[in-house]
Amino acid sequence: MPNISKRGLEMPASPIRRLVPFSEDAKSRGITVYHLNIGQPDIKTPEVAIEAMNKLKIKTIEYSHSAGIESYRRKLVEYYKNLGINIDKNQILVTTGGSEAISLTFLSCMDPGDEVIVPEPFYANYYGFATAASIKVVPVASSIDDGFALPAIGEIEKMITPRTKAIFICNPNNPTGYLYSREELEQLRDVVKKHKLYLFSDEVYRDFCYTDKPHMSVMHLEGIEQNTVMIDSVSKKYSECGLRIGMMVSKNRDIIDTALKFAQARLSPPSLGQIAAEASLDTPASYFKEVHKEYIKRRDFLVEGLNKIPGVYTPVPKGAFYTVARLPVDNADKFCQWILSDFSYKNQTVMMAPASGFYTTPGKGIDEVRIAYVLNIENLKNAIETLEKALEAYPGRK
Amino acid sequence: MPNISKRGLEMPASPIRRLVPFSEDAKSRGITVYHLNIGQPDIKTPEVAIEAMNKLKIKTIEYSHSAGIESYRRKLVEYYKNLGINIDKNQILVTTGGSEAISLTFLSCMDPGDEVIVPEPFYANYYGFATAASIKVVPVASSIDDGFALPAIGEIEKMITPRTKAIFICNPNNPTGYLYSREELEQLRDVVKKHKLYLFSDEVYRDFCYTDKPHMSVMHLEGIEQNTVMIDSVSKKYSECGLRIGMMVSKNRDIIDTALKFAQARLSPPSLGQIAAEASLDTPASYFKEVHKEYIKRRDFLVEGLNKIPGVYTPVPKGAFYTVARLPVDNADKFCQWILSDFSYKNQTVMMAPASGFYTTPGKGIDEVRIAYVLNIENLKNAIETLEKALEAYPGRK
Ligand SMILES: Cc1ncc(COP(=O)(O)O)c(C=O)c1O
Ligand SMILES: Cc1ncc(COP(=O)(O)O)c(C=O)c1O
Repeated sequence: MPNISKRGLEMPASPIRRLVPFSEDAKSRGITVYHLNIGQPDIKTPEVAIEAMNKLKIKTIEYSHSAGIESYRRKLVEYYKNLGINIDKNQILVTTGGSEAISLTFLSCMDPGDEVIVPEPFYANYYGFATAASIKVVPVASSIDDGFALPAIGEIEKMITPRTKAIFICNPNNPTGYLYSREELEQLRDVVKKHKLYLFSDEVYRDFCYTDKPHMSVMHLEGIEQNTVMIDSVSKKYSECGLRIGMMVSKNRDIIDTALKFAQARLSPPSLGQIAAEASLDTPASYFKEVHKEYIKRRDFLVEGLNKIPGVYTPVPKGAFYTVARLPVDNADKFCQWILSDFSYKNQTVMMAPASGFYTTPGKGIDEVRIAYVLNIENLKNAIETLEKALEAYPGRK
Repeated sequence: MPNISKRGLEMPASPIRRLVPFSEDAKSRGITVYHLNIGQPDIKTPEVAIEAMNKLKIKTIEYSHSAGIESYRRKLVEYYKNLGINIDKNQILVTTGGSEAISLTFLSCMDPGDEVIVPEPFYANYYGFATAASIKVVPVASSIDDGFALPAIGEIEKMITPRTKAIFICNPNNPTGYLYSREELEQLRDVVKKHKLYLFSDEVYRDFCYTDKPHMSVMHLEGIEQNTVMIDSVSKKYSECGLRIGMMVSKNRDIIDTALKFAQARLSPPSLGQIAAEASLDTPASYFKEVHKEYIKRRDFLVEGLNKIPGVYTPVPKGAFYTVARLPVDNADKFCQWILSDFSYKNQTVMMAPASGFYTTPGKGIDEVRIAYVLNIENLKNAIETLEKALEAYPGRK
């Protein structure tokens, strides 16, 4: 029998999935598990999207244009214009989730062996897409002690080699919730210009910013229009993870033309998802106001609650719906398993994502977890209380 | 500015797309263009699928399991059982179209530089997926003169090198419509066993077989269960191309486990598509009977019509909804452009796919076209008549 591919062997299994059997087992013992581990919001999808399906009247569900339904791309142009991002419909490629936008960006801009610099910790699946594309992720450390700000630009420059093709940021950031400042983005602009690199920016959490200022996109940076690719998605914006609709946006025509060739091979993004996503562009402003208010409430509640627990520290995230917290434990992987398999408080426990899965540098993030605030306040309260009790009882407490 | 990737440059643009502007231009001149070039059937999607959307009642459109919704996979197990394919739900990975099933198969089984042997002509996008995965397609010639039967097994064996990991067939075949015999499949079984190779089989046209016998799948071959991957899709089966739902099926646990790791990175296949596809499993048998009857009628009409045109030859395809025809022309690429840009008959013309796009060996298929019989008889009649007149008028006639 032939062998599995080497890249398949190198491909990490999702670190959270390792915990799933323990969570299932806890549930089977009648324990309530609070899921602080997930990126699937509990927020409702806008009604306009469901209505579009309920009213669907087509005879044949056909392939769409490989770059996405034209009427949808036209409406997206308007949507981006309102964000101060001026592009035309040929600068947007509708993809199968932000996930595919990342893959297509890698394939179009980078070859096997090329390197992309990514501030660490980072969304674990970047590593997966890089492995699939045979490219190398070069992490540059950001630290919980300065709230996961952009690493000093000199540190980033140190990582540049002849194989470096791009810097990749996630803004707002998963897992840290960090929101890059204008100053940081301008530093990145200068460095990609100086070293002739691409700048990829994953902005799928753009709608979850908790400051007074509007989100600053890499698409707002002047002078590097040809270096820049923005990744977007309806998954988090409208709580439409299952639609599998995202966007790859760039003013660099060669990049979009190249990505389109790869996109033509896979024929088209999902048609029903595009119809629902197009309808979602008419979501009333009140929807976002509600969601925004709810997340700020949850964030404040969570951050305050966590920082009150002795030995726990988390910075205040300014975006997305995650935070990374440092726990007084020997090893967060062990702790996250233990709390599911060996602990419960008032018949409850919590599932969290060990932060080690978001680092590629060995040993980093060993005492950190990512916590998603996708539960309502009542459940968050119970979850925090449970976590506090667990930390008191955990044998590997530091 | 950094450069586009080399693989991006190597990636061929879709050969049919080159003709699109000529077709659009003809239409703008008021000419009716018969599309014999496409793989998008005009057949209606089963009503149960549309109904599932019309009745959709969910609050949040969530990610599904990365391997697909469990109830769907369970029903697929029953579906395959009826075809004599005995698998369990963990041997099925629901993918984003058959397209993604092919990509995941390449990524899981092959590394950059590895080789896959494919009978030529073949579905052009195999080359695209191979380029994306940095693997090499090694064509082995089949010929219109023996109806595109499997090349002599000795010819296939000659192509095997230390880098060969797999043989890849499409059965029934796109573009040729060829349906492999039991004898041919058993020859393939012996050769993959002898040389320790994988056997990948794209069976997305399985439901379009025009013989008395049921379709024989590679999943029916005994003794190579660990070597075999089957690719399937709802796109053609139910005329649901836009759902983007396919399947990767294998009894080799390592392959499915590895593919699942890549699948976890992209989170999930489309949820709405899965719901519609699951509902489609209840499509009444009468639907398929109708479709089957219709395609046989079209095929017979087309093949007879084509072979009556002086200088034209096409074998009788036993499956799918395509045939490759040899035309009395100097160059089918030129002819397919000319017929759109410089010709019309009774204000009509036809769009066909030059077969050169389905060959990677330079010069092959130069006088061949692929014709899809996805039009009704009336339109097929007009299209054939137009083609006949065009061949009489074409300056590059041989
Ligand atoms: C940072 C980030 N980027 C991209 C994605 C991919 O999302 P999707 O493919 O659903 O658009 C996610 C999903 O969790 C994410 O957290
Ligand atoms: C031979 C073959 N395989 C696979 C596909 C991919 O189809 P899908 O991704 O829609 O399942 C097609 C589509 O035309 C095809 O012709």
